[in-house]
Amino acid sequence: MQRRKLATADDFFFSGLNIGKITSNSVGSSVTPVNVAQISGLNTLGISLARIDYAANGGLNPPHTHPRATEILVVLEGTLYVGFVTSNPDNRLIAEVLNKGDVFVFPVGLVHFQFNPGKSKAVAIAALSSQDPGVITIANAVFGSDPSINPDVLSKAFKLDKSMVKSLQSKF
Amino acid sequence: MQRRKLATADDFFFSGLNIGKITSNSVGSSVTPVNVAQISGLNTLGISLARIDYAANGGLNPPHTHPRATEILVVLEGTLYVGFVTSNPDNRLIAEVLNKGDVFVFPVGLVHFQFNPGKSKAVAIAALSSQDPGVITIANAVFGSDPSINPDVLSKAFKLDKSMVKSLQSKF
Amino acid sequence: MQRRKLATADDFFFSGLNIGKITSNSVGSSVTPVNVAQISGLNTLGISLARIDYAANGGLNPPHTHPRATEILVVLEGTLYVGFVTSNPDNRLIAEVLNKGDVFVFPVGLVHFQFNPGKSKAVAIAALSSQDPGVITIANAVFGSDPSINPDVLSKAFKLDKSMVKSLQSKF
Amino acid sequence: MQRRKLATADDFFFSGLNIGKITSNSVGSSVTPVNVAQISGLNTLGISLARIDYAANGGLNPPHTHPRATEILVVLEGTLYVGFVTSNPDNRLIAEVLNKGDVFVFPVGLVHFQFNPGKSKAVAIAALSSQDPGVITIANAVFGSDPSINPDVLSKAFKLDKSMVKSLQSKF
Amino acid sequence: MQRRKLATADDFFFSGLNIGKITSNSVGSSVTPVNVAQISGLNTLGISLARIDYAANGGLNPPHTHPRATEILVVLEGTLYVGFVTSNPDNRLIAEVLNKGDVFVFPVGLVHFQFNPGKSKAVAIAALSSQDPGVITIANAVFGSDPSINPDVLSKAFKLDKSMVKSLQSKF
Amino acid sequence: MQRRKLATADDFFFSGLNIGKITSNSVGSSVTPVNVAQISGLNTLGISLARIDYAANGGLNPPHTHPRATEILVVLEGTLYVGFVTSNPDNRLIAEVLNKGDVFVFPVGLVHFQFNPGKSKAVAIAALSSQDPGVITIANAVFGSDPSINPDVLSKAFKLDKSMVKSLQSKF
Repeated sequence: MQRRKLATADDFFFSGLNIGKITSNSVGSSVTPVNVAQISGLNTLGISLARIDYAANGGLNPPHTHPRATEILVVLEGTLYVGFVTSNPDNRLIAEVLNKGDVFVFPVGLVHFQFNPGKSKAVAIAALSSQDPGVITIANAVFGSDPSINPDVLSKAFKLDKSMVKSLQSKF
Repeated sequence: MQRRKLATADDFFFSGLNIGKITSNSVGSSVTPVNVAQISGLNTLGISLARIDYAANGGLNPPHTHPRATEILVVLEGTLYVGFVTSNPDNRLIAEVLNKGDVFVFPVGLVHFQFNPGKSKAVAIAALSSQDPGVITIANAVFGSDPSINPDVLSKAFKLDKSMVKSLQSKF
Repeated sequence: MQRRKLATADDFFFSGLNIGKITSNSVGSSVTPVNVAQISGLNTLGISLARIDYAANGGLNPPHTHPRATEILVVLEGTLYVGFVTSNPDNRLIAEVLNKGDVFVFPVGLVHFQFNPGKSKAVAIAALSSQDPGVITIANAVFGSDPSINPDVLSKAFKLDKSMVKSLQSKF
Repeated sequence: MQRRKLATADDFFFSGLNIGKITSNSVGSSVTPVNVAQISGLNTLGISLARIDYAANGGLNPPHTHPRATEILVVLEGTLYVGFVTSNPDNRLIAEVLNKGDVFVFPVGLVHFQFNPGKSKAVAIAALSSQDPGVITIANAVFGSDPSINPDVLSKAFKLDKSMVKSLQSKF
Repeated sequence: MQRRKLATADDFFFSGLNIGKITSNSVGSSVTPVNVAQISGLNTLGISLARIDYAANGGLNPPHTHPRATEILVVLEGTLYVGFVTSNPDNRLIAEVLNKGDVFVFPVGLVHFQFNPGKSKAVAIAALSSQDPGVITIANAVFGSDPSINPDVLSKAFKLDKSMVKSLQSKF
Repeated sequence: MQRRKLATADDFFFSGLNIGKITSNSVGSSVTPVNVAQISGLNTLGISLARIDYAANGGLNPPHTHPRATEILVVLEGTLYVGFVTSNPDNRLIAEVLNKGDVFVFPVGLVHFQFNPGKSKAVAIAALSSQDPGVITIANAVFGSDPSINPDVLSKAFKLDKSMVKSLQSKF
């Protein structure tokens, strides 16, 4: 039998959320997660954080879902056009332009995004209602899975011809 | 104060799941839901059913998620190529060809689909771990929301030029 | 430390639910479960399936409960007289005759049964709101436990004389 | 809109659990429940109590289940032979003779009973893991439902001839 | 791989709740817990018990919280002045004097206490809605932590001068 | 029957978290909550936010608990000495000095605090695992309840003489 190891402050601590990752990638955004993978003491506690950085002039946290969490986001810096889409059959877009200090909620499992239309960078802190919320970037899951989804499926689902689907699959 | 009305068998009953809806639509499939909207007695009980019909030669239940439920599906008739994609960063496709009597699980919130590659129609029964699971058809939520998502967002997310995005948005 | 093993399609797959087990037993029914014991990927996901076969002329899934699940059942073939009994003090029987395509709900923990009054066999698919719902066949739990419940208990509870209780206990 | 009414001590209070109900009934026991029906402040809090009185020489709390709760019982006075039966397929009886100050657990949904084999009365306090645990007395649910379960069902399930079933149904 | 060990009655049994621990300590009370640490079979079942003994003339179960459980208490013997305090901003004291057979509820996480104003000892049984409810005695957590909380914090929070805080810290 | 009103962006939006409330009060801190009272769309979603401002030179968010939530906090500005105390019997203080970008977790129901030892103000964002977490400021609940807790209780619990207790009660 293993000896019980007492918890210490390190098990509840993370450092560095004041500094964003670089955003010079294809979508112009980066996420710094602080969940149970970074703070082991979060296990079973049902909450986590993330910092999101958005490049100026179009930085995008592309349409995605969290399969196990609601998200609440606060803008620390800059401007964000954000939104989520309700379930079938209505698929209503609930969107808003957020400025510094504005807060928005993305209910569990719904497709949502944040986009920086401004001329300077933007920064947000997001809290999620799970210690292990998961992230599914829609375009990557659909067009960039490993192995690829049969192009017949995606061609019919997205009303794209098959060559277009294959071209998209090669990009992700 | 309202008088309490006693529950009757009607509150736990639904009829007609032996007959599928027609599948002559753009994706070649139809879903008949049996959840709390159809059976009021399911309220708070955490389960529901659906029948899915797939046209021959490519009937597709297109990539979608259930924001509040895991799904377990059994094939009653025909053949289905099914799959789901795991979360970031791996986005692994877990897929299988199912025949009559085969069962497959789609964990909560993950993108999944069923496709009928066969020459005859296919039928499945799905059970979902919520009385109100919700359905998000990815293509419709992304390209068919009301109002539309800003094309700049979708162009960058899906690596499509903006005219293509607008053309897709006009189709959904 | 063990290496993490990646999940594969096999972890989410089960085959053979198109074929029922034989029903030539004392009650004239058989259950083919598809829960976490058959599909390991169901763990923690809160759902499972079962196929139930009923012999013609009286095949019975005898009064039982699921200690951890609500059940929703759809008839694939034949006719079933089904019912559940509400809690004390009313003990109301909520019953219905189901035909092909009919659906019925048995709320968590309540005593319920299905009986085939027809001249041909019947088949149903049941979904349960737990990956490990458990089954308690009332007669077996009460009269067939190992070791036996003290006959004084059962005699008083069921208003049967003790010799009758012992006779019943010898049959289960 | 209704005015919010402030909670008071009365919403969290119940009086009289020191006095048992009379046990001169067919089973020789009585239950005094203290759940959300008696204490409105228990709503959503997931716990309740009951006092159980057992007549001398065979007082019985007959085999029953709680569809939504685990029970933990402490004997205040007297001796109790108690037990529960595990799920299919084993149906193991887990039983014990309890004396004053002894505690026993009956896991959620399992069939259980308490029986007073002693020459003096017995008293117990039970706690249940729901504010609305429900009680299903097996014999009453099975043989005493309103309306009656079809005797063919009970005859086959309990291996009793039909006249015996009808006789039992007339007693409950 | 380990062999599965079958559960026995011992896994659901505890003995000795008829006898209280001595109450000759600084607060004049003692608690005998019966939770998952004493009964392993309680694991995941969401309930536990405790016996509390109160010395005559001021025996006190001092202000404390259960971070993971609601408590429902019944007085077996004596008289208790009990209460809990609601959350900010109202901090209303909901209090009652309980006699033998009286029941009171302390909602999850709220500060509560029981005090014996009577000339004879008092005894209560408490049930808690967790198999591992936890106990935080306020004075001990605040003034008796190991290591001590910075006296500046406690001085400002409790409007006590620092020497008083240090004096208190030395007592706990 | 009321007409269903469609949700709008306003139901998921809050503005002004970039500006703290003034901290010129007795503890030198202020909390700006963003929970279901401010954002109705958070209902049932299990998450909320708060901004906390701390005056320079000793601003204190005094020892408190959240009866229904774990908290995860990130420092936006300044320095904080933070800590929580584990349950009985150990009452270990788990503490840390946090700087800008540091994150700390306070598990559900435990007593915790944040203190600004620095020469400039501090600001933090906290996320909580409930849409209605509740706050219990220990000193206020214990010494400032309405009506007051009997001084005999507090005198014994806190090892303070009664005049001291009454003096404290008059301050809160």
